[in-house]
Amino acid sequence: MLPDVQLLKPEVPIGLSRVGATGIKKLVQVEREGKRPIILISSFNVYVDLPSSRKGANLSRNFEAVDEVIERLTAKPVKRIEDLTVAIADELLLRHEYATRAEVNMVSELIMRKRSPSSSLKTQEVVKIFSDALRWRNGSKKVFIGVEVAGITVCPCAQELVRSETAKRLEEMGIDAESIPRILEVVPIASHNQRGRAMVKIEVRDDFTASIDELMKIARAAMSGEIYEILKREDELMVVENAHMNPRFVEDSVRLMAKATLEIFPEAPDDVAVVFRQVNEESIHQHDVVAERVATIGELRNEVASL
Amino acid sequence: MLPDVQLLKPEVPIGLSRVGATGIKKLVQVEREGKRPIILISSFNVYVDLPSSRKGANLSRNFEAVDEVIERLTAKPVKRIEDLTVAIADELLLRHEYATRAEVNMVSELIMRKRSPSSSLKTQEVVKIFSDALRWRNGSKKVFIGVEVAGITVCPCAQELVRSETAKRLEEMGIDAESIPRILEVVPIASHNQRGRAMVKIEVRDDFTASIDELMKIARAAMSGEIYEILKREDELMVVENAHMNPRFVEDSVRLMAKATLEIFPEAPDDVAVVFRQVNEESIHQHDVVAERVATIGELRNEVASL
Amino acid sequence: MLPDVQLLKPEVPIGLSRVGATGIKKLVQVEREGKRPIILISSFNVYVDLPSSRKGANLSRNFEAVDEVIERLTAKPVKRIEDLTVAIADELLLRHEYATRAEVNMVSELIMRKRSPSSSLKTQEVVKIFSDALRWRNGSKKVFIGVEVAGITVCPCAQELVRSETAKRLEEMGIDAESIPRILEVVPIASHNQRGRAMVKIEVRDDFTASIDELMKIARAAMSGEIYEILKREDELMVVENAHMNPRFVEDSVRLMAKATLEIFPEAPDDVAVVFRQVNEESIHQHDVVAERVATIGELRNEVASL
Amino acid sequence: MLPDVQLLKPEVPIGLSRVGATGIKKLVQVEREGKRPIILISSFNVYVDLPSSRKGANLSRNFEAVDEVIERLTAKPVKRIEDLTVAIADELLLRHEYATRAEVNMVSELIMRKRSPSSSLKTQEVVKIFSDALRWRNGSKKVFIGVEVAGITVCPCAQELVRSETAKRLEEMGIDAESIPRILEVVPIASHNQRGRAMVKIEVRDDFTASIDELMKIARAAMSGEIYEILKREDELMVVENAHMNPRFVEDSVRLMAKATLEIFPEAPDDVAVVFRQVNEESIHQHDVVAERVATIGELRNEVASL
Repeated sequence: MLPDVQLLKPEVPIGLSRVGATGIKKLVQVEREGKRPIILISSFNVYVDLPSSRKGANLSRNFEAVDEVIERLTAKPVKRIEDLTVAIADELLLRHEYATRAEVNMVSELIMRKRSPSSSLKTQEVVKIFSDALRWRNGSKKVFIGVEVAGITVCPCAQELVRSETAKRLEEMGIDAESIPRILEVVPIASHNQRGRAMVKIEVRDDFTASIDELMKIARAAMSGEIYEILKREDELMVVENAHMNPRFVEDSVRLMAKATLEIFPEAPDDVAVVFRQVNEESIHQHDVVAERVATIGELRNEVASL
Repeated sequence: MLPDVQLLKPEVPIGLSRVGATGIKKLVQVEREGKRPIILISSFNVYVDLPSSRKGANLSRNFEAVDEVIERLTAKPVKRIEDLTVAIADELLLRHEYATRAEVNMVSELIMRKRSPSSSLKTQEVVKIFSDALRWRNGSKKVFIGVEVAGITVCPCAQELVRSETAKRLEEMGIDAESIPRILEVVPIASHNQRGRAMVKIEVRDDFTASIDELMKIARAAMSGEIYEILKREDELMVVENAHMNPRFVEDSVRLMAKATLEIFPEAPDDVAVVFRQVNEESIHQHDVVAERVATIGELRNEVASL
Repeated sequence: MLPDVQLLKPEVPIGLSRVGATGIKKLVQVEREGKRPIILISSFNVYVDLPSSRKGANLSRNFEAVDEVIERLTAKPVKRIEDLTVAIADELLLRHEYATRAEVNMVSELIMRKRSPSSSLKTQEVVKIFSDALRWRNGSKKVFIGVEVAGITVCPCAQELVRSETAKRLEEMGIDAESIPRILEVVPIASHNQRGRAMVKIEVRDDFTASIDELMKIARAAMSGEIYEILKREDELMVVENAHMNPRFVEDSVRLMAKATLEIFPEAPDDVAVVFRQVNEESIHQHDVVAERVATIGELRNEVASL
Repeated sequence: MLPDVQLLKPEVPIGLSRVGATGIKKLVQVEREGKRPIILISSFNVYVDLPSSRKGANLSRNFEAVDEVIERLTAKPVKRIEDLTVAIADELLLRHEYATRAEVNMVSELIMRKRSPSSSLKTQEVVKIFSDALRWRNGSKKVFIGVEVAGITVCPCAQELVRSETAKRLEEMGIDAESIPRILEVVPIASHNQRGRAMVKIEVRDDFTASIDELMKIARAAMSGEIYEILKREDELMVVENAHMNPRFVEDSVRLMAKATLEIFPEAPDDVAVVFRQVNEESIHQHDVVAERVATIGELRNEVASL
């Protein structure tokens, strides 16, 4: 019989917050109502904690847990991605009897079909989706799902600066004072704009659930406009004009996601946790700008009510 | 006078946890006692929070703060990298009078000179160093410094499996029972080994400080051995043999960093926070394995004492 | 009627070698004989050349070409990935009547099922597959397919150094001279080992074809051993021992791929082009080591024959 | 005496196009006339070819070559980055007596000081610089230097679409036909814009040289405008307005770089090789667009003359 090194008492009796593996890639299938199942290449991180009295986490059991659960659960497509992360976390606790906590993160690229806004050409969009599941030995859990979508964001500040300057120029040209505001209303005024990424993440529980489709809706509406792989000229005109009618700071995007979340989930309990993040790859800088809110639904409700 | 869009009241009165910019690269100089100053290309993230009543964070002030502080502080080299992150955080609070909290992260690659272990050839090593500073309006702060070094890690489990198997084969060959353990002692037994990365991060305060050099010492000793850009044949022999005499799981590496931290900083207050992380890029898998401990010095002391 | 800016004569009458788009992600399906079709998230680059007399390439036509061809071709699964890249290149030439050349690159991660070597556990493996198609207006073309697989590589040089040193130690211990070589034969001697990546790319034509499965076979056999996501202890023992019985330099891996290619495709015409590359993520260094051969099948045949 | 595995005859007598190492990071210093020397963290790739009769490239000699040359050459700052890549290539040929060819690539991030365009605030910019040196045993060589800079690019096509649409709206508003073109001339019309990257690479030789500063000038002028880390409001206005006065396709950027190269280097011999590339991170798409020209100075001269 081979000695089991992993069971030996550690020389240094210090516990570990997390022991695990990262970047385990698997093919998974997710059902969608009335549509073809989605095929995902998902990347998983799996962790358990380790008491100070135990040498190794026997990591190979982690991978068997991941594999067996996925093999079993993907015999038929899963309904929701969080079913998968929770089931893996449960299996980890079952197999690592000393662990008090298991954690599973899953992230995937999802190819969504969509149509261009004016000419209605068929195209596809890449959306990042993810789920995190934390499970404690005492039965409690914390589960999140989330999405990240790309969009165009137009800077309101630069646009306002250009608009003021333009008004001055029109005045100098001798355009009459009354016409100037009317003209400025119909001209899409230049600003810097860029690729943005809107991320929303929400806690799901036995008494509250949310879908990837709902989260995508929230994230997409947060930026100045959606973006597309194919655009005919009439589509491109529409995307650029609409985006310039909806200039947005990173701060605006986060606030709009928060507001939309309250509206789309009126029934969400007050203690449901949410995270919103907007990143803009500024076209006038080499750095990115970021805004973020971490809160509970109840906190957001209070802030909005306090208006 | 141009209108200041950023001062307008937001349509959605929701506060933001963080607004800022990421990936701002700057050249900085750090002094080292009795040595040439270190030149670093540092990448900064800077954030403030934003109350629900304020539309935008006026991000350009963030960059001015970063730039002015760096210009001012780098006229002569800084003594410690945390001096820089703290000074930037202070400046952010000064300029964003509505913010209650400022956060600055800095990360850099540092090229360290070192010598190969046997032939003592001159070579260089890339070490990642970082500092995080959080400052609150009420005067409190939380400041960290950290390092990440690369090394070789040899798996103890696979080595033990191979050793047992080898013992059986020696027995079958007719080697006498007494000689087998003596033989196994002098033969560096094969195992899988790979690049690892050891990370240590520690809180620094008015009553406790640590240096990048001390942290590098802790991180380097955590793995099976150091690695080098140049190795003559006698060096390569030494590195491989020594590493196989010191097989280490990710868990071991984290525990050894914790232990060394207690030993090197006996005077550290109990509530000083520390984070240790070991990542091994497993040569027998496509995924990485990870171990991590987040704790206070006091918690670690208790666990070790409870032996 | 909107003006078509892209048709205007350029101010600077200089031709372009390539105009196109990179990172277009699409979902594609590839048939496999007697197996379930493979679902791939593929990333495409598409390019045409542009004569000096033409202002813009009207890039949106590129994307329509990509999308329409993929929509059409993926109504039912494609037989070979190169069918897709060639069809897109053809479509690009059709739609860009001024172009003399079209180029399409496709790259994908493929999740392959496999079993662990000893316990035969089900597991999955990520393989990178790709295809490049170049098409000229005059009818000629150049098409490649390729794969990149991960494996473990054991350094022969370090192992030999350790072996010599070990022999000396056994001698000093008083082991008799005859037994030493017999002992060294059954002991898996330590060396540094690491993740490697073997890449093979081959031209496919009307008179010669190759399959992804054949290329994977060639690439996998080039390293010291295959790697797996799940390994039970008996599997881990087998992987580590076998790898140490097959130590390989990056140079060896490239040469073995070349040799295997000649053997697996004895019928390949002499002017078929091939590229082999091996990258090892050295566990004793921070840098990677690389070997590469670009040749025709005929050149390789000559070198082998000249033995 | 230890056996030298690398000298053994290979089992498979196949030559290698390149054997080497990638990602070797070193600190280097480059002199600038009348300014402080530049400190660079440079990443090197080094390769030699390997005849079919030789087993291994003895890679450790590569690193010694890199290290010794850099140690020696950086005792005092180098004048030009290509001095470094050429000297390393020479040393590689010297130490690998069987090699017929040596190749060295160097890439670095360079932090350049600059001032914001209107308020003249001090800021910094990250520029990528690189050099490639190829050396043959017969004495011939091929050496390149290059730069890549970031900038803002405004799409001319979308801007033209918006301008036409705006003209129609002004007409419908009852603005008189004569005023419309005058109005459109003073209004910065919206378009999509984004971060772009302009790359220029040129051959340097005994009879022709170019400087990093000249290449930066060429690359910066190719896009719709420069970008900055810090911008006060008057700067931001200027950057956005100027960029919208200079809309540019990727094709335009490449052509402008080609044209500027001919103008800045009128004395360059006809057979000097150049490469230009422009990448735009499209704000209305998830993919990037790219244009590229590979040519000799003579070819470019002919195309321009044929106007």
